Amino acid sequence: MSQGDGVGRDPVRAYAERARESWTKALVEWLRIPSVSALPEHAADCAAAAAWAAGRLDAMGVPAQVVPAPNAGGLPLVVARRDEDPALATVLLYGHYDVQPADPLDQWTSPPFAPRIVGDDVFARGADDNKGQCWAVLCGVAALLGAEGRLPVNLRVVLEGEEECGGHALADLVAADPDRLRADAAWAADGSLFTPGLPAIYTATRGIVYAELEACGGETDLHSGMYGGAAPNPLLALCHVLAGCKPWNGAVTLPGFYDHVQRPAADELAAWAALPFDEAAYQRDEVRAPALPGEHGYTLLERLWARPTFEVHGIVGGFVGAGAKTVIPSRAVAKISLRLVPDQDPMEVVRALEERVNFLRPEGVTLTLRALEAEPPVRLPTDHPVLDAGRRALSAGFGREPALVRMGGSLPALAVIAKVLGIPTVMTGFGLPDDRLHAPDEKFHLPHLVHGAVATAAFLREVGRLGARVRLG
Amino acid sequence: MSQGDGVGRDPVRAYAERARESWTKALVEWLRIPSVSALPEHAADCAAAAAWAAGRLDAMGVPAQVVPAPNAGGLPLVVARRDEDPALATVLLYGHYDVQPADPLDQWTSPPFAPRIVGDDVFARGADDNKGQCWAVLCGVAALLGAEGRLPVNLRVVLEGEEECGGHALADLVAADPDRLRADAAWAADGSLFTPGLPAIYTATRGIVYAELEACGGETDLHSGMYGGAAPNPLLALCHVLAGCKPWNGAVTLPGFYDHVQRPAADELAAWAALPFDEAAYQRDEVRAPALPGEHGYTLLERLWARPTFEVHGIVGGFVGAGAKTVIPSRAVAKISLRLVPDQDPMEVVRALEERVNFLRPEGVTLTLRALEAEPPVRLPTDHPVLDAGRRALSAGFGREPALVRMGGSLPALAVIAKVLGIPTVMTGFGLPDDRLHAPDEKFHLPHLVHGAVATAAFLREVGRLGARVRLG
Repeated sequence: MSQGDGVGRDPVRAYAERARESWTKALVEWLRIPSVSALPEHAADCAAAAAWAAGRLDAMGVPAQVVPAPNAGGLPLVVARRDEDPALATVLLYGHYDVQPADPLDQWTSPPFAPRIVGDDVFARGADDNKGQCWAVLCGVAALLGAEGRLPVNLRVVLEGEEECGGHALADLVAADPDRLRADAAWAADGSLFTPGLPAIYTATRGIVYAELEACGGETDLHSGMYGGAAPNPLLALCHVLAGCKPWNGAVTLPGFYDHVQRPAADELAAWAALPFDEAAYQRDEVRAPALPGEHGYTLLERLWARPTFEVHGIVGGFVGAGAKTVIPSRAVAKISLRLVPDQDPMEVVRALEERVNFLRPEGVTLTLRALEAEPPVRLPTDHPVLDAGRRALSAGFGREPALVRMGGSLPALAVIAKVLGIPTVMTGFGLPDDRLHAPDEKFHLPHLVHGAVATAAFLREVGRLGARVRLG
Repeated sequence: MSQGDGVGRDPVRAYAERARESWTKALVEWLRIPSVSALPEHAADCAAAAAWAAGRLDAMGVPAQVVPAPNAGGLPLVVARRDEDPALATVLLYGHYDVQPADPLDQWTSPPFAPRIVGDDVFARGADDNKGQCWAVLCGVAALLGAEGRLPVNLRVVLEGEEECGGHALADLVAADPDRLRADAAWAADGSLFTPGLPAIYTATRGIVYAELEACGGETDLHSGMYGGAAPNPLLALCHVLAGCKPWNGAVTLPGFYDHVQRPAADELAAWAALPFDEAAYQRDEVRAPALPGEHGYTLLERLWARPTFEVHGIVGGFVGAGAKTVIPSRAVAKISLRLVPDQDPMEVVRALEERVNFLRPEGVTLTLRALEAEPPVRLPTDHPVLDAGRRALSAGFGREPALVRMGGSLPALAVIAKVLGIPTVMTGFGLPDDRLHAPDEKFHLPHLVHGAVATAAFLREVGRLGARVRLG
């Protein structure tokens, strides 16, 4: 591939190799800031992490500001722009500066906000998700400006601080001023390579409906000796309803649930089948369960990427202390979610869920459904010049043609950028599958700072080369 | 009835009426001692409550001692005896000095251990269960000794301090020295009247098997976006297994579960049908649920007293905080119990439960069953001279022939006294159905101190009159 020829001779890569050490030092600085968005006591740390990024963008020549969240109590966004020439295409870069809570602290080998470098890896909360990846993206801009003094595109940057806490500051910002982030192409690195050495581009993410289902029986807790045999048991009622929504190895039983589910095209399925994916190793080393149960008739990757799910995340109610207490609780609440795939509509799914649980409602209990989240599934380009630009960029950065995959999870920012703003988006990742994001000993592979920066710079060049043509894509 | 004639002219009743005020003061003293057996920080209070009762027994002429629990860390028992004449029958009186924890404290109108008298009721933790009832029993002895100077029987008294915390001090005491509590008849008041004015004798109690069922999937918690569709969900697995053990309105599905269940005799069922029991009021005022679901083909009282149950008391695992977290937990544990009726065997039920859950085990999860408690159901006399003595005694005390009922709950002491020691036992109660035992604002109706004492004295007289004949009963 022509990109392969360029590796090592590209002035951007040469710049990046030279900068790696100072970039690493800078990343360590950022990782020291415990910008945990879910915990209000870290609000000042979040602001500091935003200010750090804005300062770096300013320093590299991309004027940035920290924008207070439009929503009350929200966390600020970093918004930056650099205009080169109105005739050039415009690229939006996305990332997030907030991180997951670090607990359980006792399972970390070293403190989560005291970054530790071992060989080529840095260990810290946020090392992969998303500071390491996001910093690689910003370093790509720095390298291009450092090597060439100008950018081949106009640039927009948005870094949010509520990705890990389900906030909507970004959505509100876009709703208030859609033009602020308008671009011809977007680039986001908040995922991972498919396997070490094999970069990936995501062509879809799953959406989600998250809900609480409350079952109420008697008006007070009752003693199972005195009332067992007469009083309705809300916990047992939830068991019946939830089991009735999802046969163990079968399809979700909500009415119309699969009506809009699109099966991936034959070539997409063929490409997945050709991926270097070892199902036995996945079961043994990742899930570590006796079996991988799931819907009959679908491959594992199809179940993970292209089939909706029904999960129970927690059940609240009754007695959960040590020992034995014979209470029939007055009420119990299940936390459940459904992952959605293109083209399921979250609001339709909420209605179908309501219909199904009411159909299954056992005599003697009342059921109340509360939807807490509803994010649509997102399709990303599978046939678009911007996707081709992304493929070439990743090849340039990582020396290998990327795989086209999907993401089982949701990334609400994509619904804003790709769906609301309609920007053709290349969603990729510079992490590794074993980076333990959201878990103790999260890490980031430092050579990917260089590869990710080179890929980002290559993407800006590729889109710049497309020029006005991209708008017709 | 001849007993009715005696009310008011009986010197014991006259003594009791005169003593009511001082008995009430004494009960208030006992209620001030927070003898909560479940909380280790109240161990000294439990010892104080035991010493208080022993002191009272001594003072009334029944030499008593506080016996340290045979089990390490156990709470002491009060054991007393008064021998009148080896030719007389011997009666064992049972009660317990420990009480339930008082929380939720904020739902008490006045502090739980600052007894408050309003009209004829005293409000305090333990007022009904069991200090008020137990004190009435002891007052019956005091009244008989006060009025007549001697007892018509030899007396044994045992008050335990682990009734509310599932301890086995009493069982251990009896195992170590069965003769210590040997008697020809036993009398226990740890229940309630059936309705105000209508006393009751229990002819059976339900047993219980309490267990934890653990389901394990993957070895760590997993993200439902990344793993949903592949990883087994232990919470959903528990829903399937528990729903599979107990159809909502159907019978428990454990193999052989009903093989030894004895249907009550026709006359017992006829007697229940004739009880003043208002099912609509029970649903509206006690359970306060939209319906009273249960096994088809059985009356409500039969379901409560003579049918086994399957209940879920709590489910631990996953995320139960506020908001949304999309975890597929590594493990989940359900707390479950089965109430058992004569002649089910708890150990057979544990084995059947194990067999059933393994049959229902969903692919990809492992299940582990841990039995925490196993108490047998207990039959009490339905045709025995001691039962007749009990009927006459309660008629004398409360002015009305008692109803023969059953208890939906378990009273482990009965398994020791009636099953292990084989003593014909009259199990009754001086509480009222609305005394809120185990709940805030527990109360006891003070006139029942007198009626209960008179009934107890009458029981001693009746058994005394039976004399040696009772041993042939």
